[in-house]
Amino acid sequence: MKRSHTPPFLVAVTLGIFTVLAGPGIAADPLPAWNDSSAKQAVLGFVAKVTNEGSADFVPESDRIATFDNDGTLWVEQPIYTQLAFALDRLRSMAPQHPEWKTQQPYKSVLDGDLETLKTGGKHALEQIIAATHAGMTSDDFDKITSDWISTAQHPRFKRLYTECVYQPQLELLKYLRENGFKTFIVSGGGIEFMRPWTERVYGISSPQVVGSSIATEFQFVDGQPVLMRLPKVNFVDDKAGKPVGIGQHIGKRPILAVGNSTGDLEMLQYTTGGSGARLGLLVYHNDAEREYAYGPAGGLPDSKIGTFPQSLMDDATENGWIVIGMKENWNQIFPSVP
Amino acid sequence: MKRSHTPPFLVAVTLGIFTVLAGPGIAADPLPAWNDSSAKQAVLGFVAKVTNEGSADFVPESDRIATFDNDGTLWVEQPIYTQLAFALDRLRSMAPQHPEWKTQQPYKSVLDGDLETLKTGGKHALEQIIAATHAGMTSDDFDKITSDWISTAQHPRFKRLYTECVYQPQLELLKYLRENGFKTFIVSGGGIEFMRPWTERVYGISSPQVVGSSIATEFQFVDGQPVLMRLPKVNFVDDKAGKPVGIGQHIGKRPILAVGNSTGDLEMLQYTTGGSGARLGLLVYHNDAEREYAYGPAGGLPDSKIGTFPQSLMDDATENGWIVIGMKENWNQIFPSVP
Repeated sequence: MKRSHTPPFLVAVTLGIFTVLAGPGIAADPLPAWNDSSAKQAVLGFVAKVTNEGSADFVPESDRIATFDNDGTLWVEQPIYTQLAFALDRLRSMAPQHPEWKTQQPYKSVLDGDLETLKTGGKHALEQIIAATHAGMTSDDFDKITSDWISTAQHPRFKRLYTECVYQPQLELLKYLRENGFKTFIVSGGGIEFMRPWTERVYGISSPQVVGSSIATEFQFVDGQPVLMRLPKVNFVDDKAGKPVGIGQHIGKRPILAVGNSTGDLEMLQYTTGGSGARLGLLVYHNDAEREYAYGPAGGLPDSKIGTFPQSLMDDATENGWIVIGMKENWNQIFPSVP
Repeated sequence: MKRSHTPPFLVAVTLGIFTVLAGPGIAADPLPAWNDSSAKQAVLGFVAKVTNEGSADFVPESDRIATFDNDGTLWVEQPIYTQLAFALDRLRSMAPQHPEWKTQQPYKSVLDGDLETLKTGGKHALEQIIAATHAGMTSDDFDKITSDWISTAQHPRFKRLYTECVYQPQLELLKYLRENGFKTFIVSGGGIEFMRPWTERVYGISSPQVVGSSIATEFQFVDGQPVLMRLPKVNFVDDKAGKPVGIGQHIGKRPILAVGNSTGDLEMLQYTTGGSGARLGLLVYHNDAEREYAYGPAGGLPDSKIGTFPQSLMDDATENGWIVIGMKENWNQIFPSVP
């Protein structure tokens, strides 16, 4: 009988290479932009137990639903929501066809760059601007308008595309969840048709997996062509208590993991972690003025009307066992590297 | 040098086996319950061209959206819609807790088995029955109620579970489309939460890919638990011109293939085939009284208020190039074999 004379150290090296190549022995870190913190360990531990068939916390793939807020959770929401930047840009580009806007509020304040006056108009002013910029065209046309804008518009501070102001750690988390059999959804207060044209490319989240606010549409024939016409009328507000309702409508299952960053996400986290079995709630906390923004008012950070994170939400997190992810401590990289 | 002496015929046999096993040389018929008709060829030809990267009609996977009506398209809708059978069964099972129903219409007519009187109540009577049987519980509870009913209720004529009164040729078509990179959706006038508990098991269509009519829900805390409460109020009617709207809301892309069987599907087919590029519209035509049902009134078949298929729809099909699938000629098997 012939014996192998391979020296033991060579066997070890070979096995080592094999393990690295084939995993899952010494797997690469799936979340390299996350520092090794208790938050990261909570995420890894949760995924490990719900995907382990031998675990009491095992969840079959069809029930592995993860929902993510968008503004402030997956991408930057300061100094103003990106969709508002889009609406203001679009209003300005439409102004030549609307000479009356030069003297009519709230349009005048936008054209004058006078956001303080715009703010005094409140919710009604915002609805007028949304109606003027988001309605009166077909869904196909709005898709093109949005796609064109998002492909060139830049964030005023970071001087890069808005779609490059997404959070690298969250891109990794989305991918990691999908690789572990999760279906990933966006559940955002933002406009569903504003997000859909680019979410698959940017987040790997396809159009049917985007839940958001919407205006009413109507089936019509225009020039003999069957279209969906966008009407100047709110259909659904996917925010606060609307988020669980939107989840019920679009997903039809209670998520087992939800990620948010503000009071708008409170009910989504309550609904998600209120179910039986293993559940995880995560809240991004913007405490990094240097690399991104810092706002609260939890923890004494400056107050913000956009993405409000009051002390009461911090208390809810503690009470419910939701993990608060301070950007400063938890993320070693904020945005993806741009080629 | 050593040469192989394997006889040529053995090589041929081996290659043959390899081809059969590994395809795509001599592939098995993906639609065995479909007779070799022009309808079948149209379906196979459509899928071949939209999946062929070299074809001018190629469609990338993310845009391969196929929408199917449910009642009368994927399963039996006669003598009454299955969901109505559920509502009537549920009303009867709830009657002991509602002694007033013995004298109150429309409940009395249901308890008396007097469907003629029930019909005279029209839409309002139906809404009352839906409110009594479909609202006032949480979404989780309704899921359980529906799941329990569908696991035992039998079709009155075929004496098999309703979920076994689905069409075998359509199960094959759904599977074939998914194997070719399509996402398959249900777009039904039926209740979205009535379908979701069983569509994945029966059709391979997961809960987020079901679009349907709905009643309003509200996020509430009941006994300290966060739930979605079902309210006695219509939220959305996913029928006729509502179908393209539901598609816009839930899918956010125009389908390239739509399948229906009645006037309720007209606008969905118009919207689908009205887009640019390769499109296919299919209409199931119930003309097989022996194996299933025959109703129209197109082609002189008996009129039906359920799944109406008038001559005008036949004319629309001709004009738009939609394929009409007569069950009698096209399907060699109607229902799946039951073990």
